[in-house]
Amino acid sequence: MEYEENLVRGWIQKHHSKGIRLLRKLVQEGSVRGCESSAQAIIIEKCRQLGLELDIWEIDKKELSQHPAFRSDRKDFSGNPNAVAVLKGIGEGRSIILNSHIDVVPEGNKEDWSKDPFSGSIENGHLYGRGATDMKGGTASLLLAMEAIISCGIILKGDIIFQSVIEEESGGAGTLAAVLRGYRGDGAIIPEPTKMKLFPSQQGSMWFRIIVKGKSAHGGTRYEGVNAIEKAIKIMGRIQLLEKERNARITDPLYQSIPIPIPINLGKINSGEWPSSVPDLAIIEGRMGVAPNEKLEEAEWEMESALLSICEGDAWLQKNPPTIEWFGGRWLPGNLEVDHPLMKTLGEGFQRVMNHSPKIEASPWGTDGGILSNIGNTPVVIFGPGTTEVAHEANEYIDLKDMFEAAEIIAITLLHWCEVAK
Amino acid sequence: MEYEENLVRGWIQKHHSKGIRLLRKLVQEGSVRGCESSAQAIIIEKCRQLGLELDIWEIDKKELSQHPAFRSDRKDFSGNPNAVAVLKGIGEGRSIILNSHIDVVPEGNKEDWSKDPFSGSIENGHLYGRGATDMKGGTASLLLAMEAIISCGIILKGDIIFQSVIEEESGGAGTLAAVLRGYRGDGAIIPEPTKMKLFPSQQGSMWFRIIVKGKSAHGGTRYEGVNAIEKAIKIMGRIQLLEKERNARITDPLYQSIPIPIPINLGKINSGEWPSSVPDLAIIEGRMGVAPNEKLEEAEWEMESALLSICEGDAWLQKNPPTIEWFGGRWLPGNLEVDHPLMKTLGEGFQRVMNHSPKIEASPWGTDGGILSNIGNTPVVIFGPGTTEVAHEANEYIDLKDMFEAAEIIAITLLHWCEVAK
Repeated sequence: MEYEENLVRGWIQKHHSKGIRLLRKLVQEGSVRGCESSAQAIIIEKCRQLGLELDIWEIDKKELSQHPAFRSDRKDFSGNPNAVAVLKGIGEGRSIILNSHIDVVPEGNKEDWSKDPFSGSIENGHLYGRGATDMKGGTASLLLAMEAIISCGIILKGDIIFQSVIEEESGGAGTLAAVLRGYRGDGAIIPEPTKMKLFPSQQGSMWFRIIVKGKSAHGGTRYEGVNAIEKAIKIMGRIQLLEKERNARITDPLYQSIPIPIPINLGKINSGEWPSSVPDLAIIEGRMGVAPNEKLEEAEWEMESALLSICEGDAWLQKNPPTIEWFGGRWLPGNLEVDHPLMKTLGEGFQRVMNHSPKIEASPWGTDGGILSNIGNTPVVIFGPGTTEVAHEANEYIDLKDMFEAAEIIAITLLHWCEVAK
Repeated sequence: MEYEENLVRGWIQKHHSKGIRLLRKLVQEGSVRGCESSAQAIIIEKCRQLGLELDIWEIDKKELSQHPAFRSDRKDFSGNPNAVAVLKGIGEGRSIILNSHIDVVPEGNKEDWSKDPFSGSIENGHLYGRGATDMKGGTASLLLAMEAIISCGIILKGDIIFQSVIEEESGGAGTLAAVLRGYRGDGAIIPEPTKMKLFPSQQGSMWFRIIVKGKSAHGGTRYEGVNAIEKAIKIMGRIQLLEKERNARITDPLYQSIPIPIPINLGKINSGEWPSSVPDLAIIEGRMGVAPNEKLEEAEWEMESALLSICEGDAWLQKNPPTIEWFGGRWLPGNLEVDHPLMKTLGEGFQRVMNHSPKIEASPWGTDGGILSNIGNTPVVIFGPGTTEVAHEANEYIDLKDMFEAAEIIAITLLHWCEVAK
């Protein structure tokens, strides 16, 4: 096997320019929600050139929305397909899903970027652009690894099921559609930006919207009203406390070095229309992290109980309790054993390339892995180049060195997991 | 004098329908900011019919903006004039300014109104519509009082200077323009909705905008960022404390029955764009009440000191202190002696009509009286029909009975203050 390992590693090292070209093209086709088709076309063409079995389809919202895990406020999925490309093995080997999402979050304020957000320009070994780290760099690693195996003429026993899905950033409808289409694997790797760490567990998460009522009045006689901002402050204080309570319970050693394993993020608040009026409405939006071994419904219940408890001591809130909606994004948590064979194989691949053992942590964010493991019954490890600090930010970039190392690690992992046929 | 008193009171009692017609027409011409001209035209036509000396002019923003008390973000004053109408006395009597504003705040959400906001419809003696209480009802009282005196053929010694100004709701540029045009009086009455109480002192107020910085991050790793909402909560907590501290110092008996003499209203907060991102900016807007004997600059300084003090214990805020802007509305406080002759005359007029003595309090809100007294050097009492609870609200209304009683009280006050000539 050392022979094949060296073969694919050598191929990747000789073809860095291919990886860069692919990544740059993917970044330049900014694939924000609803505009994924052009970037997806690049993936599809690449897979066609590699001779993979292609399955390209548009999500049927009507059908998909029947599933309890479906969460999407997207009106229309047409024109922006999911793509799955399979490298069939000769049989009797373990299969693996390589899952990556093609959608990127909006570029935000262009003035915050020092370059065009979709330039794909390179500086000091970093390739810049929206999606470079989240997660087109990871996608390029996957395709490089597969191309290396194919180009070196290596035949595998198990299938490699490469998935390029839409909608990860908005609740995972793309991966859910792939699972419901029947795609399963003996294992799966999702190269989200883990900074080259292995994440067997992953935080789930879900969005909430809390609506707080007040009573309007003139600011000069504000005591005649009830200020929705003041009530919102009280409620947010309770949420901050709830975050502390929930995190105090987390003892999993995977979370040892993570300051807040399952954060509750206060992401948005809007209240009031006029400086000298007492606002009668406040809307808080945020994201609640869910522990790997927790059910989303349990976390919902805990939040709702906390909101109820704060009403008890407040006459106004008792009569006008805040309401909570669990809207938009919703990512299932995942929880793979640290000693699962896939962890072992991937860890060994890492050791071979990096000459040290990998860091193993729990993912601080939800990924499509929750759907793959919970709905698709497929063991998932999150591992990839890039770093979450720059994801969703201006001047997002990926360190190309990491991308190529990840490609080598994944290629070796595929050889061992799916097994070389000859 | 009792003869003249009875004459004008009798006239008003016989001509309620005139007052209702006038008020309804004024309400039906919704005069929100920038659209004051149609309502103003009704006032002007009425004053013309009464034979008053008219002075109608458009505010010269360039000129007015030179004055330190000028505060307005209005781009264009053209087309919506100020109007002053004078009933000249024969001389040697005290003059009086009767000041009312023609502008109304926006009607807000029309669905919150049970009737059209500009219907002027009457039910159970209440006339409904935006501006009915703030302050077209008061305006109608003034014009009824003047019409009664004129119609009864009574000649006064002092001048009555009736002012219908724009821009009260947005900082007082209309009254400032009238003062700078030279209008002064030996006294002034502003019939804002005091619920028929006399307000010799009035709270000043000014608007503030606090900009709080954070550092963005993904919600799942929120500890990598600094949440602007959390910092804003801290700052708003300090502002709530500042309000307590400032109000603890108020000992003026006029404020005895007012729960919070000089409130600081948190009117607006906006932060964040995405539930699962850590927001890096929060903007708080509000209104700070200023005590009658306080300077605006002193209050500003106190707020700014409070903001500084909260930075001390917070490493992030120390490096990234919040900034404060004193933008938009700015109303000077006013402070007339309780035993000022105008208070006495108006109080006696009240006693005569109502058969009990008036309640005397401090105004919980700023009015154009601050400009009249501070810049125009004119002693001001705020007294009028209507109630602040319904001002700026849906289903604003005025109790017509109050409006007619106020007209009688003001008419009697004019007779005594300006003195009857024959």
